Amino acid sequence: MSCVIPKQEYFDRIAKFQERIKAAGLDACLVHGTESDFANVRYLSEYWPTFEQAGVFVPAEGDAVLLIGPESEKYARGRSVLPKVALLLNYRESAEPDYPGIPLATYDKVVKMAMGDKKLNKLGLVGTAVMTKPTLDAVASQLPGVEVVVADEVFRPLRWFKSENELACHREAFKVSEKAVQAILNEMKPGMTEFQVIGIAQREIYANGGEYEGHSLYCFGGDRTSNGISRPTGATIKQNEIIQLNIGARVGGYSSSIGLPVYFGTLPKEQMALVEFGLRAHKYTFELMKAGVEASSIAKDYEKWGCDQGWGDYMLYGPVHGLGIMETESPWIEKTSNYKLQENMTYQIDTFFTGNGYGLRWERGCIIKKDGCELLSHKFMDLDCCKLG
Amino acid sequence: MSCVIPKQEYFDRIAKFQERIKAAGLDACLVHGTESDFANVRYLSEYWPTFEQAGVFVPAEGDAVLLIGPESEKYARGRSVLPKVALLLNYRESAEPDYPGIPLATYDKVVKMAMGDKKLNKLGLVGTAVMTKPTLDAVASQLPGVEVVVADEVFRPLRWFKSENELACHREAFKVSEKAVQAILNEMKPGMTEFQVIGIAQREIYANGGEYEGHSLYCFGGDRTSNGISRPTGATIKQNEIIQLNIGARVGGYSSSIGLPVYFGTLPKEQMALVEFGLRAHKYTFELMKAGVEASSIAKDYEKWGCDQGWGDYMLYGPVHGLGIMETESPWIEKTSNYKLQENMTYQIDTFFTGNGYGLRWERGCIIKKDGCELLSHKFMDLDCCKLG
Repeated sequence: MSCVIPKQEYFDRIAKFQERIKAAGLDACLVHGTESDFANVRYLSEYWPTFEQAGVFVPAEGDAVLLIGPESEKYARGRSVLPKVALLLNYRESAEPDYPGIPLATYDKVVKMAMGDKKLNKLGLVGTAVMTKPTLDAVASQLPGVEVVVADEVFRPLRWFKSENELACHREAFKVSEKAVQAILNEMKPGMTEFQVIGIAQREIYANGGEYEGHSLYCFGGDRTSNGISRPTGATIKQNEIIQLNIGARVGGYSSSIGLPVYFGTLPKEQMALVEFGLRAHKYTFELMKAGVEASSIAKDYEKWGCDQGWGDYMLYGPVHGLGIMETESPWIEKTSNYKLQENMTYQIDTFFTGNGYGLRWERGCIIKKDGCELLSHKFMDLDCCKLG
Repeated sequence: MSCVIPKQEYFDRIAKFQERIKAAGLDACLVHGTESDFANVRYLSEYWPTFEQAGVFVPAEGDAVLLIGPESEKYARGRSVLPKVALLLNYRESAEPDYPGIPLATYDKVVKMAMGDKKLNKLGLVGTAVMTKPTLDAVASQLPGVEVVVADEVFRPLRWFKSENELACHREAFKVSEKAVQAILNEMKPGMTEFQVIGIAQREIYANGGEYEGHSLYCFGGDRTSNGISRPTGATIKQNEIIQLNIGARVGGYSSSIGLPVYFGTLPKEQMALVEFGLRAHKYTFELMKAGVEASSIAKDYEKWGCDQGWGDYMLYGPVHGLGIMETESPWIEKTSNYKLQENMTYQIDTFFTGNGYGLRWERGCIIKKDGCELLSHKFMDLDCCKLG
């Protein structure tokens, strides 16, 4: 099993998507991606834009067309598995250059490339969470008379169930992440900046086959460990406080993340207690994850268990989220999640607690199996890992 | 001069923006930013979203309000210079969680926070190139009766003219980029993957005070050097072909990039000729850049000169683009650019040539001065740098 998705798998995905497009009563879908939120486009084409945005036009019957900005033609033709490529101004970079002399297409031309003479009456939009105004405006003006509807749910479930090739990428991404975390545990010292710690991880990710970070990497100390989302800073690593690490490599397009709290010296008793409880909560969650279980029941069970243990005030949101090309993707596991877990869905078990002036996160990925879940990393899962000196 | 923008400078920016909002006959502007295209939001607030999107609501009179997604409250309050912060569902991550139990605001509440009882009749949208459907829909539904117009040009020119603090960040970013390029020149060997070369640069960027890459870093060989935009791959570095490097650090929010073609062994004669001509074209462009010059005349002069020298077929687009928080930002210098260069504008001199199966880019930043331009790096500007062994 290599860490490359075979070309045929992209066409199989498109065929499945086309079945769903037909079943939804649509003539085609327009899928959107950006530099940081590229998953939908990459899933269908292998293409990953940089500087510019991108799209894929998928007709219910006919050929999918990759849609790119004016500067990416050679890059896209070399990378995309889709032979049909069109350049549209609405995918240009946010600096909005004019590109005099570069011939550009419009959506009516794209419809012809994809569908020939078949008529487009009803178009579904996919990736609407990241679809931008220039694209929405271009669709409206270049496809007059076409009924346009939000169709995220026509596409989204395709990404939930991972093939063996996708799982191989995830497994390898976690191996690379383990190496990056281990290098940090070996080399991090009080007095280094948080940025410098991130540099250790970046070095290891790329040295070991990673193509990029799997998400913006976390290393931050003190107060900021209470942030559910955050970024590292130029602050230095200090003794006697929690330092939160979340390190994730991307391999073959697929993401990963391993999270743990670490410290130098000693932690105040209540912080140490949260570290210890957090690890128990993390392991408790593993036991809840298996095929056939209602997702909302996991979130409810986890919350009740945490409250019963006396830590309810430290819990902010649902304990698990989807994992795939994006490190955080659909579906989440929240109290409102009405679906059943199924085999070969992949999740991040994201055990986050936020207190007053401190917090922490234990995190790793898993694959749902019939009788439980396969953890994507077994390392850094005991309290000895947390104490660095 | 430190590499931190002082808090007051953000408020000065907002005050200047408010003057322009008034002059444009608007009551307020709504500014948008994403994880990868965050410059507008960071310019006004210092905040840089991750996973989620963000906005800033700026009234003609009153207080600017930072707008964030449901997971970023502690991060945003710790980082943003703006004391007023509101959580809105439309800025959530693309996985679209429900966040049951987290109280969220709407734009009508934001207007009250920013403007009190003053009435919002006319709203300008800024950052529309990256503004997404959930935000556009929320504005429409939560602010009924408000006239909404595109107002990118009300904001954009503020970012063109750099303060001494901004220039200090750029200067430092280029110093860090120089270290990263030098490390690659010292350590890169045939047989390494392109990803591994990027890892060397990432290590140096973070070790030397960079907060992140300034753009997605380039190292690629062979055919792909003809790509105007591209990404590195797992392919190995080979002898006797051009390898394109573009390495940029981000310091204090501000970007940089240094680009040069390098090779091991020997290059075919026509490729070596393009390397040599490219460097001459790069240096020729320096001479064109000074305050008072019409931007379009630079693009026209450059194109004419290149054609006169016999390399017209290798030229794709305008030779210079804006530099700031984004490595590529407005204003570009194209044949359609009708404005005059002014002091303290910053640009990337982006000397790119694309041939049949090969190409190259010489690139570095500069600051426009009265009588010329200050180069932001003087290194890696001779043919000896290109030959690595």
